[in-house]
Amino acid sequence: MEIINLDHISANPLLPEVQEAMVHTIKENFGNPSSQHKIGDRAAEALATARESVARLIHCAKSKEVVFTSSGSESVNHAIKGLVLANEDRGKHIVTSNIEHKSVIRSLRRLKMTGFQITSIPVDDRGRVDPAQIAKAIRDDTVLVTIMHSNNEIGTIQSTEEISKITKEKKILFHTDAVDSVGVVPIDVQKLGVDALSFASNPFYGPAGVGGLYVRSGVKIWPLIDGGVQENNKRGGSENLIGIVGMGVAADLASRDMDTRLAHYNKLRQTLLQELPNYIDEYIINGHPEHCLPNLVSISLKYIEGESVMLMLDDDDIAVSTRSACASGSLRASHVLLSTGLEFADAQGTLVLTFGMDNTEEDITQFLTKLKETVKTLRNLSPLYKKSA
Amino acid sequence: MEIINLDHISANPLLPEVQEAMVHTIKENFGNPSSQHKIGDRAAEALATARESVARLIHCAKSKEVVFTSSGSESVNHAIKGLVLANEDRGKHIVTSNIEHKSVIRSLRRLKMTGFQITSIPVDDRGRVDPAQIAKAIRDDTVLVTIMHSNNEIGTIQSTEEISKITKEKKILFHTDAVDSVGVVPIDVQKLGVDALSFASNPFYGPAGVGGLYVRSGVKIWPLIDGGVQENNKRGGSENLIGIVGMGVAADLASRDMDTRLAHYNKLRQTLLQELPNYIDEYIINGHPEHCLPNLVSISLKYIEGESVMLMLDDDDIAVSTRSACASGSLRASHVLLSTGLEFADAQGTLVLTFGMDNTEEDITQFLTKLKETVKTLRNLSPLYKKSA
Repeated sequence: MEIINLDHISANPLLPEVQEAMVHTIKENFGNPSSQHKIGDRAAEALATARESVARLIHCAKSKEVVFTSSGSESVNHAIKGLVLANEDRGKHIVTSNIEHKSVIRSLRRLKMTGFQITSIPVDDRGRVDPAQIAKAIRDDTVLVTIMHSNNEIGTIQSTEEISKITKEKKILFHTDAVDSVGVVPIDVQKLGVDALSFASNPFYGPAGVGGLYVRSGVKIWPLIDGGVQENNKRGGSENLIGIVGMGVAADLASRDMDTRLAHYNKLRQTLLQELPNYIDEYIINGHPEHCLPNLVSISLKYIEGESVMLMLDDDDIAVSTRSACASGSLRASHVLLSTGLEFADAQGTLVLTFGMDNTEEDITQFLTKLKETVKTLRNLSPLYKKSA
Repeated sequence: MEIINLDHISANPLLPEVQEAMVHTIKENFGNPSSQHKIGDRAAEALATARESVARLIHCAKSKEVVFTSSGSESVNHAIKGLVLANEDRGKHIVTSNIEHKSVIRSLRRLKMTGFQITSIPVDDRGRVDPAQIAKAIRDDTVLVTIMHSNNEIGTIQSTEEISKITKEKKILFHTDAVDSVGVVPIDVQKLGVDALSFASNPFYGPAGVGGLYVRSGVKIWPLIDGGVQENNKRGGSENLIGIVGMGVAADLASRDMDTRLAHYNKLRQTLLQELPNYIDEYIINGHPEHCLPNLVSISLKYIEGESVMLMLDDDDIAVSTRSACASGSLRASHVLLSTGLEFADAQGTLVLTFGMDNTEEDITQFLTKLKETVKTLRNLSPLYKKSA
């Protein structure tokens, strides 16, 4: 079964070098990095090497600023809950945006249940937050600003550096969810000026279920997982060394191949956007045309449901997504798309396409051909389409 | 380098079948279990199969009572914080014991900082909690009792069933940290009568950094990691499928081989305890002689430091531990040993030996021979020993 995968955001294939390193770690039985005898030595070395690779990818000042976690969602929970609880004396108010990932929204909702207040900033029709609005929302009791780096449904990249200028001046902590950016676009935590940054291994062809959290040296944060002294006393529990080794190798490759990958993604994205009008009409491209992830295209198809398109394309062995991998399983419209001002019906007609290095221009052509048929079939069945005609 | 590993509690080798299943999952690129297209199907199946294997090992009523986590420590944090926060209306008082793992102690300390009250029950000289004392400690505002199933330093197993009779009668939630029990001794969550039970994959030769949390159907619990709807809406974040598949296979093997393993561990333990007086004198065996883990022996050697013994044995390619894998890195005496009434100096002279299926009786003899030399050398250097002579 040869499937055309245009849903890399759900699951990226592991690169051969990543596979090899993980298999080696499995076969060699590396032991526990915390052991004080020889069996643990290689484990401790492997852990340190991976940490350096990941720190290099995001340009940390020190490798110990990287905390390995079990996912981007854990990183986000750790960052948000850990920062505000450790710095509660500064206040109980948090500023965020209307288009954050579920892990951010639900972490904040949880904090709200324990007495925190949240101000959520709207976005423009391209999904961007205006930094001036953040400045305005900050109060005397604001402890944290958490604004995502890039959006996982529409690809819009925020002006993180501008936001951090504001938070630095006002001495407010700033966390950014960069799960879909790290390893995909260049990220420099020092230039961005953030206090904490969440990321995951899978977006750059490392294993799923392995994440990282950058915490700037000197920033106070509570662990999410209290326990032993692992991860520089920031996260208890035995490490998933096999996964972490995979993430380290994936980080090295992402650093090395960043330019090649960007060029490949941009080419596929351009081809798709240029060719699209030759195959279908009445659609909307969501997100920002310039400040955007190079490997993501969000298309809202009028008069039909994205879910139906996805299922029909699946029958043709083409994998696409209707929205965030973490939130699938319900037919409600995306809060991200509604926040950009999209109509409810158009939001429901949305496909999210995400490219990988294994995709070719031929994949795009095949997708477009099948999409044309699918859209035609579904629109012919659609009462909305007939009414508009 | 052929090392005699008598520190299996720090890191168990992966069984060949576990390795094979993990390597297969790596090579096959299973995708994301949450995807709604074909690429995710095999991943969803693999996740369900692993969940059934793990549920069988601990005799769950339903497999969905198993939540996969990233470690025993995460499970403990999730259980303790998740249960009390979701049931805070019942009160803010928690009952625990004096010999819990760091992940329990530190989770409780964190809750104390947010207004919870903790009552910690002492243990007898064999490390056992008297259930009557728990009954006495329960107040009108008690929301949770958390008492470990077995201790990771002295091996004592608590009378969990008796405790659960009390908590059931008083309608209090009961969590047990069974990280060092599950897959080592038979565990039946229904017979034990607990509401939540934490465990990890490594004690039964699965990968480190993969854990599980049993939550009885119907029990209210908050996620520790808020986000997507994964894990029956109890834990957000993409799954570490490679690790989870390994845990599932390890669970099947543990179910199948439980009797053989128990017999092997018991034989090694008996040999060690019987032979010990022929090699050294002036030592204390910690823990309970009957209600104990079969694969663990804790020995306090008088007049010398366990740390020094460990380092000298390491030079002879024998790996032992001085205490909990998660808490190494400081020279303070163990709170567990002090709680059983051990003198501070004796507590510092403690070795924790943990057996695996790869150990032989010959390993025990070699260990005893080297131990004899080491103890002799160190005692000759010890001012305490000279004073006592």
